[in-house]
Amino acid sequence: MTQALYATLREITTATITTVLLKKGIRKCWMAGPKPLVPGGPRLVGPAFTMRFVPAREDLATPESWAKPISTRGAIEAMPEGCIAVADAMGITSAGIFGDILTMRMMKRNVTALVTDGAVRDKAGVLASKLPTWCNGAASPASVNGLTFVGWEEPIGCGGCAVFPGDVIVCDDDGAVVIPQNLVSFVAEEGAEHERMETWIVGEVERGARLPGLYPMNEETRVRYDAWKKGK
Amino acid sequence: MTQALYATLREITTATITTVLLKKGIRKCWMAGPKPLVPGGPRLVGPAFTMRFVPAREDLATPESWAKPISTRGAIEAMPEGCIAVADAMGITSAGIFGDILTMRMMKRNVTALVTDGAVRDKAGVLASKLPTWCNGAASPASVNGLTFVGWEEPIGCGGCAVFPGDVIVCDDDGAVVIPQNLVSFVAEEGAEHERMETWIVGEVERGARLPGLYPMNEETRVRYDAWKKGK
Amino acid sequence: MTQALYATLREITTATITTVLLKKGIRKCWMAGPKPLVPGGPRLVGPAFTMRFVPAREDLATPESWAKPISTRGAIEAMPEGCIAVADAMGITSAGIFGDILTMRMMKRNVTALVTDGAVRDKAGVLASKLPTWCNGAASPASVNGLTFVGWEEPIGCGGCAVFPGDVIVCDDDGAVVIPQNLVSFVAEEGAEHERMETWIVGEVERGARLPGLYPMNEETRVRYDAWKKGK
Amino acid sequence: MTQALYATLREITTATITTVLLKKGIRKCWMAGPKPLVPGGPRLVGPAFTMRFVPAREDLATPESWAKPISTRGAIEAMPEGCIAVADAMGITSAGIFGDILTMRMMKRNVTALVTDGAVRDKAGVLASKLPTWCNGAASPASVNGLTFVGWEEPIGCGGCAVFPGDVIVCDDDGAVVIPQNLVSFVAEEGAEHERMETWIVGEVERGARLPGLYPMNEETRVRYDAWKKGK
Amino acid sequence: MTQALYATLREITTATITTVLLKKGIRKCWMAGPKPLVPGGPRLVGPAFTMRFVPAREDLATPESWAKPISTRGAIEAMPEGCIAVADAMGITSAGIFGDILTMRMMKRNVTALVTDGAVRDKAGVLASKLPTWCNGAASPASVNGLTFVGWEEPIGCGGCAVFPGDVIVCDDDGAVVIPQNLVSFVAEEGAEHERMETWIVGEVERGARLPGLYPMNEETRVRYDAWKKGK
Amino acid sequence: MTQALYATLREITTATITTVLLKKGIRKCWMAGPKPLVPGGPRLVGPAFTMRFVPAREDLATPESWAKPISTRGAIEAMPEGCIAVADAMGITSAGIFGDILTMRMMKRNVTALVTDGAVRDKAGVLASKLPTWCNGAASPASVNGLTFVGWEEPIGCGGCAVFPGDVIVCDDDGAVVIPQNLVSFVAEEGAEHERMETWIVGEVERGARLPGLYPMNEETRVRYDAWKKGK
Repeated sequence: MTQALYATLREITTATITTVLLKKGIRKCWMAGPKPLVPGGPRLVGPAFTMRFVPAREDLATPESWAKPISTRGAIEAMPEGCIAVADAMGITSAGIFGDILTMRMMKRNVTALVTDGAVRDKAGVLASKLPTWCNGAASPASVNGLTFVGWEEPIGCGGCAVFPGDVIVCDDDGAVVIPQNLVSFVAEEGAEHERMETWIVGEVERGARLPGLYPMNEETRVRYDAWKKGK
Repeated sequence: MTQALYATLREITTATITTVLLKKGIRKCWMAGPKPLVPGGPRLVGPAFTMRFVPAREDLATPESWAKPISTRGAIEAMPEGCIAVADAMGITSAGIFGDILTMRMMKRNVTALVTDGAVRDKAGVLASKLPTWCNGAASPASVNGLTFVGWEEPIGCGGCAVFPGDVIVCDDDGAVVIPQNLVSFVAEEGAEHERMETWIVGEVERGARLPGLYPMNEETRVRYDAWKKGK
Repeated sequence: MTQALYATLREITTATITTVLLKKGIRKCWMAGPKPLVPGGPRLVGPAFTMRFVPAREDLATPESWAKPISTRGAIEAMPEGCIAVADAMGITSAGIFGDILTMRMMKRNVTALVTDGAVRDKAGVLASKLPTWCNGAASPASVNGLTFVGWEEPIGCGGCAVFPGDVIVCDDDGAVVIPQNLVSFVAEEGAEHERMETWIVGEVERGARLPGLYPMNEETRVRYDAWKKGK
Repeated sequence: MTQALYATLREITTATITTVLLKKGIRKCWMAGPKPLVPGGPRLVGPAFTMRFVPAREDLATPESWAKPISTRGAIEAMPEGCIAVADAMGITSAGIFGDILTMRMMKRNVTALVTDGAVRDKAGVLASKLPTWCNGAASPASVNGLTFVGWEEPIGCGGCAVFPGDVIVCDDDGAVVIPQNLVSFVAEEGAEHERMETWIVGEVERGARLPGLYPMNEETRVRYDAWKKGK
Repeated sequence: MTQALYATLREITTATITTVLLKKGIRKCWMAGPKPLVPGGPRLVGPAFTMRFVPAREDLATPESWAKPISTRGAIEAMPEGCIAVADAMGITSAGIFGDILTMRMMKRNVTALVTDGAVRDKAGVLASKLPTWCNGAASPASVNGLTFVGWEEPIGCGGCAVFPGDVIVCDDDGAVVIPQNLVSFVAEEGAEHERMETWIVGEVERGARLPGLYPMNEETRVRYDAWKKGK
Repeated sequence: MTQALYATLREITTATITTVLLKKGIRKCWMAGPKPLVPGGPRLVGPAFTMRFVPAREDLATPESWAKPISTRGAIEAMPEGCIAVADAMGITSAGIFGDILTMRMMKRNVTALVTDGAVRDKAGVLASKLPTWCNGAASPASVNGLTFVGWEEPIGCGGCAVFPGDVIVCDDDGAVVIPQNLVSFVAEEGAEHERMETWIVGEVERGARLPGLYPMNEETRVRYDAWKKGK
């Protein structure tokens, strides 16, 4: 997974990525739930570092549990530089999985972003920490109010998608998508061409072209597009 | 449906419209789901141009289907100037029904707005296209990921409301409402008076008046209001 | 309930309050639904003034009902200065419980804030009235479209929490929490210490400290923290 | 509310009652949630005795609370003979509001039925107690696990309907409907005629009649029906 | 579509049909919602006759509308013998789309079954009519309480599936599945072989065989199975 | 975990178990979703054997995946005699996790029961296999249609509860509850006494006793109860 590949992916919208993955029969790649806490930022790319929660049980999900080796704290210290941390909160939004202290530490560790189908807490503090975050809202209670942390770097579900450690995550204003590890090169290649094509189509629409025959392109349009591409 | 009528409606809040329709026994006129993509814009009015989706079936809902005569592309080219396009996405928000190329083309065709109980995709591009949009969020996947387009200008449901071609749609920061075609004049007339009355009441509240007897008005208050109205 | 106590609570995040209440076994204190209509404002504190709705019945939930003694209008005139009005809308978000005239009147009566698991209507007007509001979105229809108002200062549910008249409400960007009346002093005391501790921890994280042993603090860290606290 | 009126209502299906109430503009009269615990029993009729729950708060919703004067136990002892107890459980089905001991006591007090949008617990025991019950499933936990009981004979919501003490409840295999107190005579009268008419229509369908013109009846069919009715 | 094909399909479980369709990439073929009103009956097969509802609007969805040409009554008279009527009720279960008179008429017209993601009303009467019905519960209110009927033999959604007129529907105790018209022969052929294979596997499991290598079959197991099949 | 302990637990209702666990502050122990496929059977007890699914991804969740070492097949062969298999299906009910061949094999392996917050498929076959099953309905599609199997004997969530390998599961007509391993003896002891007490109370209610003072017992009632208990 070279940095060049990541640089390419940063130029491909998550919308395009889902279209490219559909060519491989993959429809479940966009996570329902994660939304950018601060819209309008740059597109981010990184390998998934997974975290897993199960529901709270009152004897286990306590502030004391935060000191255990298997804890969100332990997970954070295990995160490699550049990763995108993906937390399976089972879609529960009545407890915030991470607050400002934890996101501040993730920034220190050069984590690229946090993605979850759950909520964050102490939203003002998380914003102040500057960690790019895709989540489903904010909630005051700590994770232990609704969730028990059970481990990291396991297969998880997040927002209706399966995420495996090492899959690649891309996030932008449309949300977060997961690219299966073995399809990353395919997506980068096809996606770059798709973006090029859409750029050309946008120009045509700006000139007043009608959609049928243009998008998707018919034979004649494709000839014109190919000529333009060559001429570039 | 004269332009004068539309001009009148543009001065009536969607809140007032629902109150006026209730006098005719109509409670189901506000669509649950559509929210302004850019809050704070002007109130918009136009005749409904309906579009209908059913759930995706993998053999039909493919990028190839976009080239068919019955496609969202075909629908867009059939939209009359000034209409408000209303898309029945069955409330599904895990696929974006329209992206930037389509909304850009709608702008070119002078469509007034897009309203849907579903999502858009390529949100950044949709914003750039400047098409006023009321939707329920953004999602990366294309419509074919969750939906099959089946036609336009049919009766549809949108956000729990029945919408028929030719009904009038009004959108503002509270969302989108549908006025049955035969009640548009009634709503314009009653609505204008209702707005006048509320403006006067607001003035009274600003002066420190108590609510009981004022809103709704009792006999005595109505006399005062009528005097003010005459004096205007 | 002295003003000093309220001043203390205003410095304690709702996140911290939920953590402190968990020490007393209370997990259900954060209301799901209410979100700040205008994020980024100051934290607000006040005693709960409760209002209760049941579902609409077409013969009762009419604009005419607004003139009855038991009406939202009557409730507003009964609100004491400084209270936080909490409305049980049963989580129904397809009708706006209050619009601009009502929130304007609440401002005149020096109500601190409005909190509801329902929606407001005439959002532009509510914003203009400046009443701090925590709600679950906006909707055009009036309360009578979906709700019947039945009384005030009764026990209610709001966002999955029980709220009793006289409980204390605290709202910030994470939402709204309810503190049982008999635990307010405890929360103020413990909460203030908790904030102090987190401030120190934030400093440690900024200096690059690892989380395990720091948050929560182990024996050694606590010694360092206590020394810092004494030295303050 | 004479026994004769109740006897008439026992011959009218809840389906017919909703159709008759629609003539008065009432659409919200069928409760979503309550289903017969034992299908196929007789239709039951009685005046509503209301009970109200709010969400649990851990310091209040405890087994100890069952000994308080305001408790489900107190409510049961206040139930008049023949009433139908309607419990507003806010649609929460993860706690059973009543178990076998309570339903057994209700049988002793000659309560006609229990209706709730929540669940019962100890289903085997409730069945053994023979109390006719319309509920939304069974759950092991006691009410205090999710709910706090706050009073009886107040206006409540149940399954999306407003229910006031003294309204009349009718339950059969389609569920439970509420008739506003002032419309009971109207419903009994119109409903009886409606049942007569449907009985005649059923006979026509059995003879092979087509539906258009028959149901609803056109002019010619009505003449035939009126003749039959006279001849009866 | 010969009767022989239908006879074959009647021997193939809906479970097997979904497995066979997955080989063609089709995952969305089982309707969420429809359940047998009377479990344990025979498996039923027939071509889909579609019906479509949109949400109710109070001025349109009235008992009077039942006399219109476009009405459920009109639809029933248009149903061909042997069809399975599939009604898109948008998953709304608070109104019963059909009651006893309508299902009785469908029986007279030799309709095979009724399938809907909505509810029926007058459940006792529907049961008495003997029309095989797959629905999502029962509700007292008529369709007009929540729905407006808009047409038949159009593409619809039902329980999250696209259904087109002429698709083939199969219903059993697991629910209802839709087979795209052009895949019916494929499903019949593959499905019959799949059932044969599972019958043999069941025998193996009864003899105590372990699952790995058996289901799905490895090379060696397949040899044994093929031998058995030849010997049959 | 002796057989004697299990025998005791088989005499304690799941309702009572939740009441006893509440004394230890545990409210999350009843699983929302699992219901007995065949009501009215005996109460079952066994140690949890956990299974975990994540959402389907089209390239992984295929019939071919069933032959992998990490598969439901593999899990079944690892189940110890007497265990209760608990499957975390993330509450997804549009795919059946197990069908008749798998439940038949579980019977052969003397598994006590299957519990899941998901669905089964081939319901008729599962019933024929006689494996006691608590699930949330039936669906035709196989697990791979919505789920990817990822492992067994890990901590899981099921119906909103955390379940750890070795916890004890008890199922009856109210559903399924999980007892944390270290509380099993406590529950058995307290639960047995609770059942005894309720039996006595039932007798009192049968004799016509009022509830207040009886249930829960006041001082005087407890004296009478203690006398009865001694006399037994």
